[in-house]
Amino acid sequence: MTPAIVFGRGGLEQFSSLFALPSGRPFLVSSPTVMGFHGAAIREALAPRTVLEISMDDREETKSLDTLRAILDQAIGLEVCREDFIISFGGGVVSDVAGLAAALLLRGIRWFAVPTTVLAMADAAIGGKTAVNHPLGKNLIGAFHSPQGVLVDPDVLGTLPDRHFRSGLVEIMKTALVADGGMAERMMGHMEEIAVGRRADDLTQRAAQIKQEIVSRDPLETGERRILNFGHTLGHALEAAGNFHNLSHGEAVAIGMATALAISVNRRIFPAGRAEAIGRELIEFAGRERLAGIDPEDPRIREALARDKKNLVASRPAVLLEGVGRPAVVDVSLDEWKEALAGVLATFAI
Amino acid sequence: MTPAIVFGRGGLEQFSSLFALPSGRPFLVSSPTVMGFHGAAIREALAPRTVLEISMDDREETKSLDTLRAILDQAIGLEVCREDFIISFGGGVVSDVAGLAAALLLRGIRWFAVPTTVLAMADAAIGGKTAVNHPLGKNLIGAFHSPQGVLVDPDVLGTLPDRHFRSGLVEIMKTALVADGGMAERMMGHMEEIAVGRRADDLTQRAAQIKQEIVSRDPLETGERRILNFGHTLGHALEAAGNFHNLSHGEAVAIGMATALAISVNRRIFPAGRAEAIGRELIEFAGRERLAGIDPEDPRIREALARDKKNLVASRPAVLLEGVGRPAVVDVSLDEWKEALAGVLATFAI
Repeated sequence: MTPAIVFGRGGLEQFSSLFALPSGRPFLVSSPTVMGFHGAAIREALAPRTVLEISMDDREETKSLDTLRAILDQAIGLEVCREDFIISFGGGVVSDVAGLAAALLLRGIRWFAVPTTVLAMADAAIGGKTAVNHPLGKNLIGAFHSPQGVLVDPDVLGTLPDRHFRSGLVEIMKTALVADGGMAERMMGHMEEIAVGRRADDLTQRAAQIKQEIVSRDPLETGERRILNFGHTLGHALEAAGNFHNLSHGEAVAIGMATALAISVNRRIFPAGRAEAIGRELIEFAGRERLAGIDPEDPRIREALARDKKNLVASRPAVLLEGVGRPAVVDVSLDEWKEALAGVLATFAI
Repeated sequence: MTPAIVFGRGGLEQFSSLFALPSGRPFLVSSPTVMGFHGAAIREALAPRTVLEISMDDREETKSLDTLRAILDQAIGLEVCREDFIISFGGGVVSDVAGLAAALLLRGIRWFAVPTTVLAMADAAIGGKTAVNHPLGKNLIGAFHSPQGVLVDPDVLGTLPDRHFRSGLVEIMKTALVADGGMAERMMGHMEEIAVGRRADDLTQRAAQIKQEIVSRDPLETGERRILNFGHTLGHALEAAGNFHNLSHGEAVAIGMATALAISVNRRIFPAGRAEAIGRELIEFAGRERLAGIDPEDPRIREALARDKKNLVASRPAVLLEGVGRPAVVDVSLDEWKEALAGVLATFAI
């Protein structure tokens, strides 16, 4: 099922009229931070419905089975029934966990996503992937369960910290690099300026639409959808090695993309100068100081790569680039990742 | 997706050749009891593949999030990947929990069911419903995730205790009562004889096929599939009130069907004499002594009925009969259930 995505500043106030809501009660899953900034607005938007609020911590470290269980317990304690629905109100962690709770309660109730970060607007809340992390890897436990509707209202981004905004912009660049070369060319050389000026409304909308189109053609990620994992194979491994708190998702993906580009150069499918320019912008945008704690020999990175759920044991497909906007899914060995990462660190580290 | 169901004595030995198995490793989820009886046979059937064995307790009380989590932890610890698959080898508890683990690992890996009880062969392993219980109710946490294949080999029933065999036969009678009047008529008056002689191969196969047909027309239980809940609204509440250990599933469903028939009589849609005869056979077959601990005023029964996930808060549809083989889905109040249950106890209790 393809959900309705509504874009527009001021959309939050009109939430109830934008979607055909089920007849039951809304369970609002959100974090104390988001509710502190925008709680009054969403409560008002849902009035006169009684909103049942379930609070969760909105950090990658708490995207766990325990957090999921706490949500399930609260919803069941409130006697959730089939006509009730969940609204996730927060970043990607909230939509991933709340969406999985919706998938599992009574074998699936409906849900709506109101993303409050660029990352969630452009990527996480789109496409129906829900999940929690396991100590041994990211998103290892989850389900495909599309929201009925997604509201993207950039007004809520006013309170988003700079590092989070940048993280989302990296994910938008990723989408452009694999699916819209023209958009990638227009962004190149301007990422810093876009982040400082916070001018990403159109880019966010375009990235969300691209993802939606790809996902609607390949909802279960058996083919084309894999290209959206560009930068994520190594990115997830770096996040896992740092126990999910040294790097933001966008920072890890930026390093992952720079490394995938380096492999593309080694494979002679992508021009070296171009790859270095793109890699340099990504790394500088994410912050070169983020490279400091990374050791290519770290066995945790190797283990996480070997266990990445996108991969088979015997072969490890990864997304490389044959050109800007032209992805290629090919096998990459663990040693190739290690060497390319060492090269990226040597080239770009402070 | 409609899974392949293969029926036949001796099928277990040929398991590997009966289905197109994925290229990965088999994770065999089973109980110590079942593996004690049939472990050697299934290991041999899967040779030369290395079977990764995950053991779980096969009782309704342990059909929990904790058990699910233990399976997920073991599978992830063994580096489960997309081409790996789960084989559930046991009764309905095992297929429900193992199937849910398959649904959640890496957002869904493939699985196969080898049911070892009549109940699982005729009902639980068919139809893609997977779930665990919550302290507040049965099957409140789950997913729809069909197995790729189901092997029904009645040879494994040789070691099944009598009470379990009877439980399955009640479920077969339920399927007949709502979907095959002729089959129900042929079974009536003979349930005891079928159980003693253990002659249920054809009935099991027919019940599984009926369920498969209904499920293929309504996989997500938005309409017709609800008729299969005949006897289950009250049955689940009785099980929950007894913390899942006083009554077997079949015993609870037998009492649930007798009570639903009593309501059908009260509603003047089913003849009284006929209902009493069917109810009496069901109760006697399940064991009249099972009625002894049941109190219609028990607030736990009322609470469980009010929370039953098939129901909305405001209206509580239940399956009644307008005739043998002719189900009717209508609203039934909590008081109506209570009074009808009191009537059943007054009529049939020792």
